[in-house]
Amino acid sequence: MGAPHTDTGTPLLVLGGARSGKSSWAEGVVGRFDPPYVYVATAQALDDEMKVRIRLHRERREGLWRTIEAPVELATVLEGLKGRGEPVLVDCITLWLSNLLCSETSGIEGAVDRLCETIRSSDYPLVIVSNETGAGIVPENALARRFRDLSGFTNQKLAAACASVFLIVAGLPMRLKG
Amino acid sequence: MGAPHTDTGTPLLVLGGARSGKSSWAEGVVGRFDPPYVYVATAQALDDEMKVRIRLHRERREGLWRTIEAPVELATVLEGLKGRGEPVLVDCITLWLSNLLCSETSGIEGAVDRLCETIRSSDYPLVIVSNETGAGIVPENALARRFRDLSGFTNQKLAAACASVFLIVAGLPMRLKG
Amino acid sequence: MGAPHTDTGTPLLVLGGARSGKSSWAEGVVGRFDPPYVYVATAQALDDEMKVRIRLHRERREGLWRTIEAPVELATVLEGLKGRGEPVLVDCITLWLSNLLCSETSGIEGAVDRLCETIRSSDYPLVIVSNETGAGIVPENALARRFRDLSGFTNQKLAAACASVFLIVAGLPMRLKG
Repeated sequence: MGAPHTDTGTPLLVLGGARSGKSSWAEGVVGRFDPPYVYVATAQALDDEMKVRIRLHRERREGLWRTIEAPVELATVLEGLKGRGEPVLVDCITLWLSNLLCSETSGIEGAVDRLCETIRSSDYPLVIVSNETGAGIVPENALARRFRDLSGFTNQKLAAACASVFLIVAGLPMRLKG
Repeated sequence: MGAPHTDTGTPLLVLGGARSGKSSWAEGVVGRFDPPYVYVATAQALDDEMKVRIRLHRERREGLWRTIEAPVELATVLEGLKGRGEPVLVDCITLWLSNLLCSETSGIEGAVDRLCETIRSSDYPLVIVSNETGAGIVPENALARRFRDLSGFTNQKLAAACASVFLIVAGLPMRLKG
Repeated sequence: MGAPHTDTGTPLLVLGGARSGKSSWAEGVVGRFDPPYVYVATAQALDDEMKVRIRLHRERREGLWRTIEAPVELATVLEGLKGRGEPVLVDCITLWLSNLLCSETSGIEGAVDRLCETIRSSDYPLVIVSNETGAGIVPENALARRFRDLSGFTNQKLAAACASVFLIVAGLPMRLKG
């Protein structure tokens, strides 16, 4: 078993805008627990640029981390990690939502609710990264508006399901909960 | 007369991005006062989608709330509520600004200043919801840029006129003032 | 020599969205030091609208402030201000990055690193204004995405180089560091 939930303030949600430093900060939080660590990646290596980014990410974390890809079946993957006590980083929810939208999965709300249930019942240190996408002007594109709404509602549900929530701005954390 | 201003920290401004949970949080603040409550809606039921949303909103608040529509004449409506002590929720300023822009009203700045005067002199618990729209990339569309500027300046003026200001992120409040 | 670094919490980074009131707030911070003040402007008077804005800005600050234009050579200008102890306001980094991008300068990252070095070694009260641009939806335009990424990474580096960092929302400061 990993460090107990009550001391560590996990599950912990890390919010932040694009290039806010949220992933690095989240990695640092996971690194305070004992290795080995599990990196749950929602990114899909669909093009060369993404393949390179994912490879660089893996190299940076090499050794202490193993990577599991979960572009769509995120709740199932997190369920499967129970009982091992390994600290887990999920990076990131926004890409997962985008994958759900693009795969035209029905019942995205149900998937979000199921994910939140899994998070609440996790028995390992769990840090989850998600994008803040709602603070700009209303997008003209209808799909962008739908995605922004979905992303905002999901962040609210995740924040309710997590013990701690931080907003990262320019690499610096602001505590919202916990 | 309602609860005294000094104890309640109103007028209170609630800022947040799209789907940040700001309206629900603001409703919760108003609900700490004694009913009946007044919901001042700036939304206009111009299309079917909006009609459904407004009806659902009304049903959720049914019983303890009455709704007044104020798409444009917001300051006049708030003036008219003086002397009754009923807690008031204004939702939201961003839509009101959008209505002013679309109705090609001249003197939007004057209307904002008049609203701020009314807010300062309110004698009832007053909670005001407004969108944060300035933290994304500069919009390519000129009207969107003008709206973003107007919205930002208005939020600054409202924040100065209010006793308390909160920023909502993922349903969680951050205290900015008061 | 100006007021000592340790007391004043400078270099100080002021972040905020469009029309958040960040420049006025930053000017107020500089105004707590003894005059005369130096305003380092990264804006370029390329069109009439910009010329008017710059002239109005200058008139507002007239008397106690002198203005130095640094649309591109920002680090060199800040280096040149060493040893005089005059409080300096840089407004703003986002426009400087935009100027670098438009002038197709190679090595923008190197320029950012050099600027951060200069900031770390500054021997005068230094307040730097930069835009938060990452909290909206992903822009469809590739140049906008590149700019957003560059702006976000730069804000992270600046925040690391500064003793204090504040986020301004609706004219109100939230302390992030220092």
